[in-house]
Amino acid sequence: MLDKVRTQSVKDMMTAIARRARAAAPVIARASTEKKNAGLLAAAEAIETARADILAANAEDCANAERNGVAGAMLDRLRLDERRLAGIVGALREVAALPDPVGETVAEWTRPNGLKISRVRVPIGVIAVIYESRPNVTIDAGALCLKSGNAAILRGGSESFASSRALHACFARGLEAAGLPAGAVQLVPTTDRAAVGYILAGLDGAVDLIIPRGGKSLVARVQAEARAPVLGHLEGVCHVYVDRDADIDKAVRVVVNAKMRRPGVCGAAETVLIDGARLESLWPPIGKALREAGCAIRADAAIRALDPETEPAREEDWGTEYLGAIIAAGAVDGVAGAIDHIARYGTAHTDAVVTENPDTAARFLAEVDSAIVMHNASTQFADGGEFGLGAEIGIATGRLHARGPVGLAELTTYKNVVRGDGHVRE
Amino acid sequence: MLDKVRTQSVKDMMTAIARRARAAAPVIARASTEKKNAGLLAAAEAIETARADILAANAEDCANAERNGVAGAMLDRLRLDERRLAGIVGALREVAALPDPVGETVAEWTRPNGLKISRVRVPIGVIAVIYESRPNVTIDAGALCLKSGNAAILRGGSESFASSRALHACFARGLEAAGLPAGAVQLVPTTDRAAVGYILAGLDGAVDLIIPRGGKSLVARVQAEARAPVLGHLEGVCHVYVDRDADIDKAVRVVVNAKMRRPGVCGAAETVLIDGARLESLWPPIGKALREAGCAIRADAAIRALDPETEPAREEDWGTEYLGAIIAAGAVDGVAGAIDHIARYGTAHTDAVVTENPDTAARFLAEVDSAIVMHNASTQFADGGEFGLGAEIGIATGRLHARGPVGLAELTTYKNVVRGDGHVRE
Repeated sequence: MLDKVRTQSVKDMMTAIARRARAAAPVIARASTEKKNAGLLAAAEAIETARADILAANAEDCANAERNGVAGAMLDRLRLDERRLAGIVGALREVAALPDPVGETVAEWTRPNGLKISRVRVPIGVIAVIYESRPNVTIDAGALCLKSGNAAILRGGSESFASSRALHACFARGLEAAGLPAGAVQLVPTTDRAAVGYILAGLDGAVDLIIPRGGKSLVARVQAEARAPVLGHLEGVCHVYVDRDADIDKAVRVVVNAKMRRPGVCGAAETVLIDGARLESLWPPIGKALREAGCAIRADAAIRALDPETEPAREEDWGTEYLGAIIAAGAVDGVAGAIDHIARYGTAHTDAVVTENPDTAARFLAEVDSAIVMHNASTQFADGGEFGLGAEIGIATGRLHARGPVGLAELTTYKNVVRGDGHVRE
Repeated sequence: MLDKVRTQSVKDMMTAIARRARAAAPVIARASTEKKNAGLLAAAEAIETARADILAANAEDCANAERNGVAGAMLDRLRLDERRLAGIVGALREVAALPDPVGETVAEWTRPNGLKISRVRVPIGVIAVIYESRPNVTIDAGALCLKSGNAAILRGGSESFASSRALHACFARGLEAAGLPAGAVQLVPTTDRAAVGYILAGLDGAVDLIIPRGGKSLVARVQAEARAPVLGHLEGVCHVYVDRDADIDKAVRVVVNAKMRRPGVCGAAETVLIDGARLESLWPPIGKALREAGCAIRADAAIRALDPETEPAREEDWGTEYLGAIIAAGAVDGVAGAIDHIARYGTAHTDAVVTENPDTAARFLAEVDSAIVMHNASTQFADGGEFGLGAEIGIATGRLHARGPVGLAELTTYKNVVRGDGHVRE
């Protein structure tokens, strides 16, 4: 009985959130750039003013999380301090400074009969963002949705509940100061997981797009249950293939950076593939540099024969996103072998080739079917900021709408505008 | 028991089709333009050669359909004759003549650090097209998927089964002649509706996109069951709003053409909205012209007061796609009233404003949130051919990936290609 009451009240809450989002969507879609920026800048100020409250809420979250056994990287992502708050405020100001994609004409042409056709960017509508316990996502995702003219429904992880509420309260003050509706960026005010179920069901058609940001289990739940379109951020089992025609210095630099710059990001390399035709000269400097950088190596038999210090790779290593200082290493039969390996074990996120041979590079770039393919560059460049998008809500690894970094433009769609002068069709 | 055997065998059949499609997808994705065109042209020749067989198969379909009580427009769409076969052959040649979208660079830029980033069109992968009993769709959809580098799984309506098989056999001969895999364009060789269920479930991840082409009940089933992304072709409840500042001659011409040129197409207007501020001068010539063109009118009280010859419109008329010579007519409170009416009753397909006032036009084009919005032009221009796309697989009314006419380019996605020279991230 209690459970039924609880479920009913979560359902009512989500229905009300959906109604407010749908009502806000056309308002925010048509809001001027100035008004949206005013909201973002006022939210930034509100966060600066409320620093003490936000940090107190976050301390409460962290204490609860520690009591519940949360530790390590997860606890670290949850924790806020003055520096991180300054980063959140800075991100709001950066988004305010970015060009507004809404209204941009992406294509236009005139038909022989004189009809003028254009494709104009418009917001997608209502975007639900489901994320784990990273309080900053509350602000980042809200800011990107607002600037791109979309209404946002934010559902953060339960461990960051108090922090997210405190941050969202500042965002709400920013919206109010700019005269924008509170429904434009809403935070789901419950940790009840039933709320996620309603979002995944699409809130009776109120949700135009679901963006999951989080680990494997969250993405798996979204993929299994979502009844609305998803712009997915799968795990990144990223590869660097070092070809027989690689420049060895570039190869060492790229492999070490791709793995070790920040081993925990989704664009970090998890596997290095070495061309078997030059394994004996290529592997030793790469293996040595990885080890010196503090990376553990799980290698196949061919590499272990050269380098017995490595641990043996098991089958599951080829599909593992370590998110840490471990790399799988294997020999492949040239670029074709690398392409096959990536097709089999990759997650269509980001894969790189290191070679001085333009034909080999062209083949790799054409045949590896990932959202991002790279030549002579570190997979750690898989990032909206590094792409010059200004900011990103994540990396899309699906096939539709947008692939790779999802920035402001990728959070829009288009409408077709046709202008005539009394034109009728024959 | 028999049912279980049947279900199992359909499941096995669909699993095999999915496997062949996935195997063919990378081959067709990388096939040269010349090879794809050779396949299309060889298919066109095969159809010309097999005309008698195709027409015999179609006569069988039509006879069965008539026995089962199929009549009217549905029977008409099913029927082939020499002229329609020539049209199908012509469509294949037209698609062969269109530019290949695959490999096109849609954007490119260079970062301050020298990284070169480009976005290059790639095929979506495996596209399942589910359609009703229009044999020509077997060829049209197959041709568009092939040219855009996608593998296609085609599931046509059961009434057109023999016709579709005969046509698909010709397509298969074309693929073979060009040295392309048979898995590139497959027709589901059963009328068992369980096959549709497996497709909607996504064939264990083998289907990247589902395109339904058909009436309300098919689209409703797809929306309820699809577990893979859908590029939807909803019904078109299209509107023409005639503003107080309309040129009356243009208004009459556009309204009559939008409704009566071909009342059965999805871009046909179903409702005409008249600015209440000038109802008395606007309505009489529009009503007269519609009636002279053979159109029945279901009007609201304001119009009936002026024109008692009209029938009364009921509430459900505002949301009905008549697909025939009937139009709903109502007075609205200026452009704001028209925008509200369309938001309430429209299907986000195509809506038009007739006005000489640029501010009114701009407001309508900005605030009506449909895939296609038009100014002083007939909604019957809602068509890929009329847009200059060469051909279309239909009109998408969803919000993601593509909106409006879906031609070759809209059947592709992109990958991000990053070129460096040993670049590593700080």
